[in-house]
Amino acid sequence: MNKKRIAILGASGYTAGELASILLRHSGAEIVAATSRKDESLTLADHHPHLRTRIDLACESFDPCELVKKGIDFAFSCLPHGASAEAVQELLGKGIRVVDLSADYRIQSAEEQRRWYGNDHHDPQNLAHAVYGLPELELPRISKARLVANPGCYPQTVILAMAPLIKEGLIDPETIVADCKSGISGAGRTPKLATHFPECNESVAAYQIGIHRHTPEMEQALNSIGGVKTRILFIPHLIPMDRGIFSTIVAHPVAKLNESNLVGLFREFFERDPFVRIVNSPPGTKQTLHSNFVDIFPMIARERVVVLACLDNLVRGASGVAVQNFNIMNGWDQRIGLLP
Amino acid sequence: MNKKRIAILGASGYTAGELASILLRHSGAEIVAATSRKDESLTLADHHPHLRTRIDLACESFDPCELVKKGIDFAFSCLPHGASAEAVQELLGKGIRVVDLSADYRIQSAEEQRRWYGNDHHDPQNLAHAVYGLPELELPRISKARLVANPGCYPQTVILAMAPLIKEGLIDPETIVADCKSGISGAGRTPKLATHFPECNESVAAYQIGIHRHTPEMEQALNSIGGVKTRILFIPHLIPMDRGIFSTIVAHPVAKLNESNLVGLFREFFERDPFVRIVNSPPGTKQTLHSNFVDIFPMIARERVVVLACLDNLVRGASGVAVQNFNIMNGWDQRIGLLP
Amino acid sequence: MNKKRIAILGASGYTAGELASILLRHSGAEIVAATSRKDESLTLADHHPHLRTRIDLACESFDPCELVKKGIDFAFSCLPHGASAEAVQELLGKGIRVVDLSADYRIQSAEEQRRWYGNDHHDPQNLAHAVYGLPELELPRISKARLVANPGCYPQTVILAMAPLIKEGLIDPETIVADCKSGISGAGRTPKLATHFPECNESVAAYQIGIHRHTPEMEQALNSIGGVKTRILFIPHLIPMDRGIFSTIVAHPVAKLNESNLVGLFREFFERDPFVRIVNSPPGTKQTLHSNFVDIFPMIARERVVVLACLDNLVRGASGVAVQNFNIMNGWDQRIGLLP
Amino acid sequence: MNKKRIAILGASGYTAGELASILLRHSGAEIVAATSRKDESLTLADHHPHLRTRIDLACESFDPCELVKKGIDFAFSCLPHGASAEAVQELLGKGIRVVDLSADYRIQSAEEQRRWYGNDHHDPQNLAHAVYGLPELELPRISKARLVANPGCYPQTVILAMAPLIKEGLIDPETIVADCKSGISGAGRTPKLATHFPECNESVAAYQIGIHRHTPEMEQALNSIGGVKTRILFIPHLIPMDRGIFSTIVAHPVAKLNESNLVGLFREFFERDPFVRIVNSPPGTKQTLHSNFVDIFPMIARERVVVLACLDNLVRGASGVAVQNFNIMNGWDQRIGLLP
Repeated sequence: MNKKRIAILGASGYTAGELASILLRHSGAEIVAATSRKDESLTLADHHPHLRTRIDLACESFDPCELVKKGIDFAFSCLPHGASAEAVQELLGKGIRVVDLSADYRIQSAEEQRRWYGNDHHDPQNLAHAVYGLPELELPRISKARLVANPGCYPQTVILAMAPLIKEGLIDPETIVADCKSGISGAGRTPKLATHFPECNESVAAYQIGIHRHTPEMEQALNSIGGVKTRILFIPHLIPMDRGIFSTIVAHPVAKLNESNLVGLFREFFERDPFVRIVNSPPGTKQTLHSNFVDIFPMIARERVVVLACLDNLVRGASGVAVQNFNIMNGWDQRIGLLP
Repeated sequence: MNKKRIAILGASGYTAGELASILLRHSGAEIVAATSRKDESLTLADHHPHLRTRIDLACESFDPCELVKKGIDFAFSCLPHGASAEAVQELLGKGIRVVDLSADYRIQSAEEQRRWYGNDHHDPQNLAHAVYGLPELELPRISKARLVANPGCYPQTVILAMAPLIKEGLIDPETIVADCKSGISGAGRTPKLATHFPECNESVAAYQIGIHRHTPEMEQALNSIGGVKTRILFIPHLIPMDRGIFSTIVAHPVAKLNESNLVGLFREFFERDPFVRIVNSPPGTKQTLHSNFVDIFPMIARERVVVLACLDNLVRGASGVAVQNFNIMNGWDQRIGLLP
Repeated sequence: MNKKRIAILGASGYTAGELASILLRHSGAEIVAATSRKDESLTLADHHPHLRTRIDLACESFDPCELVKKGIDFAFSCLPHGASAEAVQELLGKGIRVVDLSADYRIQSAEEQRRWYGNDHHDPQNLAHAVYGLPELELPRISKARLVANPGCYPQTVILAMAPLIKEGLIDPETIVADCKSGISGAGRTPKLATHFPECNESVAAYQIGIHRHTPEMEQALNSIGGVKTRILFIPHLIPMDRGIFSTIVAHPVAKLNESNLVGLFREFFERDPFVRIVNSPPGTKQTLHSNFVDIFPMIARERVVVLACLDNLVRGASGVAVQNFNIMNGWDQRIGLLP
Repeated sequence: MNKKRIAILGASGYTAGELASILLRHSGAEIVAATSRKDESLTLADHHPHLRTRIDLACESFDPCELVKKGIDFAFSCLPHGASAEAVQELLGKGIRVVDLSADYRIQSAEEQRRWYGNDHHDPQNLAHAVYGLPELELPRISKARLVANPGCYPQTVILAMAPLIKEGLIDPETIVADCKSGISGAGRTPKLATHFPECNESVAAYQIGIHRHTPEMEQALNSIGGVKTRILFIPHLIPMDRGIFSTIVAHPVAKLNESNLVGLFREFFERDPFVRIVNSPPGTKQTLHSNFVDIFPMIARERVVVLACLDNLVRGASGVAVQNFNIMNGWDQRIGLLP
C-alpha cells in the first residue's frame, strides 16, 4: 500500500488529536503536516500530550503552497465552520482530496443553510460536488469523491437509526423525536462556562431545543432516503462524561409492527456494514468508547417504535468515520486503522 | 411547636440517610428510633457517616410495640416494596401516622397493580385510605391523611410537567413521551454490576423501556386530573452522576399553542407552590441539587410541546417531599426544615 | 437576635454562591447588597441559579458610600487577591467589619509575602490588626476582630492535622509532606483549559509542586503554635469531582508513638470544637460534603505519623468557615446557620 | 510471524476484557480459548460487550487437557490470587508458557509472603523459576522465562520512579513515601459497597494505609536494584474515575541534587525503553489512558526528591504489560500490538 501524505488542518482541537492517534496506527497514512492558528511554536504533541514520543511534528500556519511542496496527497480539515470552507477551497484547487470535519459542506439546500446557519454557503462551487460522508448510505459516491463532508456526531445516530424505517415507509416521518445525550467533548476544546467542570459535572441539561444545526442534516439525509418530508424534533443534552452519544429516538409507526420483523429489517439493512452492530440488548455508550462502532437497538414500546443508537463522538462521530471515508476514497478496506 | 417523635424504618439506604439529615434541621421533629434489618449493632451514623456527631442512635429491629413504648408519633418507611406494606399496616394499627416512601400504596387500581407489579396489593384495607402524596395536587387530602404514599422520583417530574396541559386539555394524552435521566443513587444502595462505578461511569444507558413501574403511577395521576386516558411512553436512563433527575417530556398539542400563554398557564397553575419554580431558561439538574425544588421549563419546539423538569431525586424525589408531606399532615407550613 | 445587614463583594464566584445559600438559612443575617464587576444587570440568582426564588437582589458595582447608605453592618469579600484588599480597606474605614475570603491578609511576614506572592502587602495598616480566622486556634482573637482573614481550604486541613503534633513537639517539623487532593471548584469559576471538563475529567494531576501559595500560610500557623520552624512540602492535586479536599499528611515522629495515645491527643485538642470530628476509620470527602465539618483521622504506619483530613472546600474550606467566623465576631454560637 | 494460540483464564474481569482487545489487534496472537467460573453459557463478548462482532468465543470451564487439545501455546491468567497458582501450575506441567496477572508468583521471600498475604506460597516449585515481569528491569530474564509474574499496577509506578535513584544511591531508602491515586477499575469488577457509584463518585478516600499487599512487591524490586533495604510507606487512594494511576513519590536525598542532572539520569536509565516517557512538565493520567506508556516526571521541591509517575492501570498496569511480556518471551519487538 502506497502511504498517503496527510495534512491535518486545525490541529489543536479534540478531533485533530483523535485523528492523529488513529492515523498513527494506519498502514496507509503518514502525517506530514499539521496546521494551527494557535501558537505556532507548539508541536502536535504539545497540543495533545498523549502523542508525546509518537510523533514529532511542529505545527505550521496554513499555507496551501507549502502543503503542495510537502507533497500532501490528502487533507483532513478540523477547522471550525466557515474557516474550513476557505481552506478546503484552496486545497481542492491544488488537487488535494479532502475530508472536511466541519459542517460547511453538509447542507445542500441554500434555503436550509440560511434558515439554520443564518448565512449563505461559503463555497457553493465545491458544495455541488461534495458527498455526504455517511458510509453506510453513500459508499459508492464517497469512493469517487474529491471532497467528503464528514457527517455530524448526533446526525449519524439519528439517520442510521431511522434509515431502515424511513426507507420502508414504516413510520410517520413527521413524528420523529430524537432525545440525544452527548459527552462534553462534543462541545469542543474551547473553555466556556457551560463546559467548566464544576458547572457541567453532576448535572444534566438540554440545550438548543428544536433549533440545533444538526437538525437539517438529519432531515436532508432521511428525506433523500425516503422521498418524504421528515420533521425531527431534536433535543440535545450534555452529560457529565468525556465521550459518547446516546440517542433515544421515538416515532409513530404507520401500522402495527412486529418486533422480530423490525430487528430483521435492521440486520438486513446493515448486513454489509462492519461498523454497525444491531445489538440484542439495550446498549450503553461505554461499549462503543474508543471504537468506530455504532450500536443500534430497535424495539417496540407502548405502540411506538423506539430505536436506541450510540457511538463514541470523537471516533465514530468524527475522526473515525473520517478515516473510514479516507479508506473508501482510496479504494481500500474501510476497516484499515479502525478495526481490529 | 410540639416536636413529633419520629421513627425511620429501613435506615440503611440513601433515602433514610437524606431524611435524617433533613429532620435534624427540622424544628418539629425528633428522630427517636431507626430500624434496620441489617447488622443491628450499627448506629444510624455508622450507616451514614455524614451524620457522625450529629445523632447518636442505635438501629433496632422493627417491633411496633417497641415503637409505641418509645412514644413514636410518626413514621417514615424507607423499606423496600412489599416489606413496607407489612410494617406500615402494623404501625397504622397502633395509631401511628405514616409517610411510606415505597411504591406499596401508590397504585389504586388492582388491575394496574397486577399488570405492572405482578402481584396483588399487599394491604388493600389501608390502600383504600392512602393519599397520593404529591402536595401540589393533593394538599387538602394530604393534610387529613393518616397514610401518605410518597410519590416516585420520576413520576413527580412527569406529572407536574404535564398537569397544567392535561387539566386544560391542551395535548393529546396518548402522545406523551417522557425521556428521563437519573443519577445513580436512584437505583438504591445495594451494589450491583450495573451500578458498579467502572460500569456506569462514562456511560449512558436506557433501561426498562416502556415497562418501568413508575408508568402507571404517572398515568393514574394524570388520568385523574384530566378525566382522560393518558398513555405515556416512559424511557428511563442512568446518568453518571450521584443525584438528579432531568425529564424531557414531549407531547402533541391538540391545537396551535402560544409559548407565552403556555408559560402563563404554568405560572398560574403553580402560583401557590413554594417548591415549584417555572424558570425562564432551560434548567440543569445542578440548580436543584440538595434542595426540594422542582424546576420546570415549558416551551414549544417544532410544533410540539416540550416540558423540561428537574429535581434532586433524594430530596424532592423522596425524602424532601416526604418531609413536605409530614409538614402538611401536621398542619404546618410546608417549608419547615426544607426552606430556607 | 438582631439581624446583621450583610454585603457580599464579588458575587459571581462559587464562594459567593455558597455563602448566600448559608446566609439565607441564618437567623442573624440579611443579605442586603451584592457587588460584582461583571455584567451589573444581573441579579445574584442569575449568577447562581440555585438561588432562584430564594432571593431577589440585583448586583451593583462596589461603592462603599452606597453600602453605608444601605446600613451594611458586615461584609464578606469574595474578591480575588489584590482587589480584595482595596475594597476591604475602604469598608474598614467606614466602620464595617469584614471577613475577607481572599489571601490578602493571611501572611504577616513581609518577606514571606514577597517570596511566595511576588508583591508587597497591599494594605499593611489593616494587616497589622487582621486575625487569621481559623476558629479552632484563634477563637478569642477572632471574637474581637474587625477584620478576619478567612483561612485557605488546603491550609485548614494541614494546620488542623498537624497542630496537636506540633504543639506537643511529637514530630520533626521539617519532615512534613502534605499530599492534598482537591475537587475542581477549588480552582474557581473562571473557565480555563485546565478545568475544561474533557481535560480534567477522568484524570488526576499535580500542580505547583512545592511552590503553591498556601504553603507559607500553613507554615506561619504551625510555627506560631509550636515555636518552631516547620518546612512543609505541599503537593496539591486536582481530582475529577466538584468539591472536597482530602489531605494525606505524613511526618517523622521524634520518638516512638502509640496510636491510641495519638488519637487521645487529637480528641482532647479538639474537644470543644463542634466542627472537628476525630473519626475512627479512614474518612472519605463525601461524608463532609455540604457541611462545615473537618474530619480527621490520625494513625501510625510504618513508623511514621499519617494524618488524613478532609472537608468541603466551598463550605468549611471557604464560606462555611467564613460564617463560623462571622458568628464568633458577633459573640454568637459558632454553629448558627451551619449546624444542624 | 507464527501466530501463538492463546488461552485467557478468568475471562469475566476487566483485565481479561482489556487483554482481549489488545490481542485482537496483535499480529502474533489468536485467542483460542477463554475460561470462566461464571455462567458458562456466556461468550467472551457477553462478558465484555465492547467485543461484540469482534470475537465469537464461548467461555468454557478450566480444563488443562482441553486446552492442550486445542493446541494452546500460551496462557494469560487473569484469575484471582490463589486460584491462579492452581491453574498456572497445571498449565506449566503441560508445557504451556504463562503470564500470570495475579500476585501469586511475585513475592520470592517466604517470610514476606506470610507477613503481607497471611499464607504460604501456593506453588513454591514454579515460584523458584518465575520471573518478575517488569520489562524495563528484567528484559533478559523475561525473554527466557516460562512463567512471568506480571507486575502490579501501583508497584510499577513506584519501582520505575525510584529505580534510577536507588541504583545510584541518591536517596535514603527508608524515607520513601508513595501517595498513590487509582481509578476505580483497579478494585476489580465484583460489585461492593465501596465501589458502588454513589459511594465512591464525588469522593476521595485512602485505604489500607501502610498495609497494602503491593508494598513488599515494591520493596523487593528496589532492594534488588540497590542492594539496600528500602522501607516504603505506601498510601493508596481511590479516585472517582474509571482508569489511571497517579503516584506522587517523595524521598529524602542523601546529598544536594541538581534538577537537570536528575532528569538526565532518568532519561539515560530509560533510554532503550519505548514505553517509558520522561516528560518535561507534570503529567496527568489522561495522557496515558488506553496506552502502554508510563509517564515519569522527576523534580526537586523543598529539598526533597519528588517523582510523579502515571499510567493506565488496565493497560500498562496489567494487560498491556502482559502483552509486552508475551512479546519479549517470544523474542519479538516488545511494541507489537501496543504501539503504534
